[in-house]
Amino acid sequence: MNEQTKGGVIRRLQSVEGHVRGIQRMVEEDQYCIDVIKQISAVQAALTKMQQIILDDHLHSCVTTAIRGDDPERREAVIDEIMGVFAITNK
Amino acid sequence: MNEQTKGGVIRRLQSVEGHVRGIQRMVEEDQYCIDVIKQISAVQAALTKMQQIILDDHLHSCVTTAIRGDDPERREAVIDEIMGVFAITNK
Amino acid sequence: MNEQTKGGVIRRLQSVEGHVRGIQRMVEEDQYCIDVIKQISAVQAALTKMQQIILDDHLHSCVTTAIRGDDPERREAVIDEIMGVFAITNK
Amino acid sequence: MNEQTKGGVIRRLQSVEGHVRGIQRMVEEDQYCIDVIKQISAVQAALTKMQQIILDDHLHSCVTTAIRGDDPERREAVIDEIMGVFAITNK
Repeated sequence: MNEQTKGGVIRRLQSVEGHVRGIQRMVEEDQYCIDVIKQISAVQAALTKMQQIILDDHLHSCVTTAIRGDDPERREAVIDEIMGVFAITNK
Repeated sequence: MNEQTKGGVIRRLQSVEGHVRGIQRMVEEDQYCIDVIKQISAVQAALTKMQQIILDDHLHSCVTTAIRGDDPERREAVIDEIMGVFAITNK
Repeated sequence: MNEQTKGGVIRRLQSVEGHVRGIQRMVEEDQYCIDVIKQISAVQAALTKMQQIILDDHLHSCVTTAIRGDDPERREAVIDEIMGVFAITNK
Repeated sequence: MNEQTKGGVIRRLQSVEGHVRGIQRMVEEDQYCIDVIKQISAVQAALTKMQQIILDDHLHSCVTTAIRGDDPERREAVIDEIMGVFAITNK
């Protein structure tokens, strides 16, 4: 990852960590189940956004380098990895 | 939530918090993007499991009480909330 | 399902069937892959909407009847089924 | 798409079309709502599998050609399109 992407992802991860701690407090204070479920969905949306940012950086760096390179196995490998990301995020 | 569910959810949230901190370290140490994306998906799966546990408890408690109760507006409200959960988790 | 819901779902299924045939033509005519993928996502969104309509009807009918009824096993069964729907739609 | 992929996708679309007609019959015959919802999920899984097949072909053809090519705008465009696919399938 380039330094800007990396800094942005770390800030987002810290924000998610704070959000998860907030949900722990909600549960401890017996807040309404449906509100807890909604906050968990908000964390998931933030994580999906993060995956998009990382994938975008990856496509511009590793994937572009591999596909422009001369190693057909490495080209195949990066494509397989993208397909793997699609598979785990779209079960 | 009953006390057992509550304890279980809090432990799972603490585990997610640790997992998210682990992902921060992965990013700081420049680990491979695809591995970071996979770990984020693992966190999302843990959060989805937690939503299921909370929803199951909610159906057995609040929803059952409301539907067996005599207030038609409250009955309608709990059904609308379940539909809301389905909608936010299945966009 | 009540008759109105049933009629609506059947019309939506016929519309999905037409949409799927349209995608077949797109593939036969070698239209751009990304456009085909987008149309498949549109069909999936229509199917998710249909699941919501059916689930909403089900909660207002079978589930309400079972939960207001006197058979604890049947009550448990309808809740398990809702959890099953949540699980298959949120893998 | 290459001819083999194309043939496979068309067969899968025909199978989905038949599956959707089968679900129409289920609804007309008043089969149990939960079973209808499950069949709709099965169709969605088949459609997701199809998107994967098309995306895999696309990465091996258009995307590889564009990224190995000399037009930086076209390179950027194919990456944006992959990100678009990720976004619509992971809302």
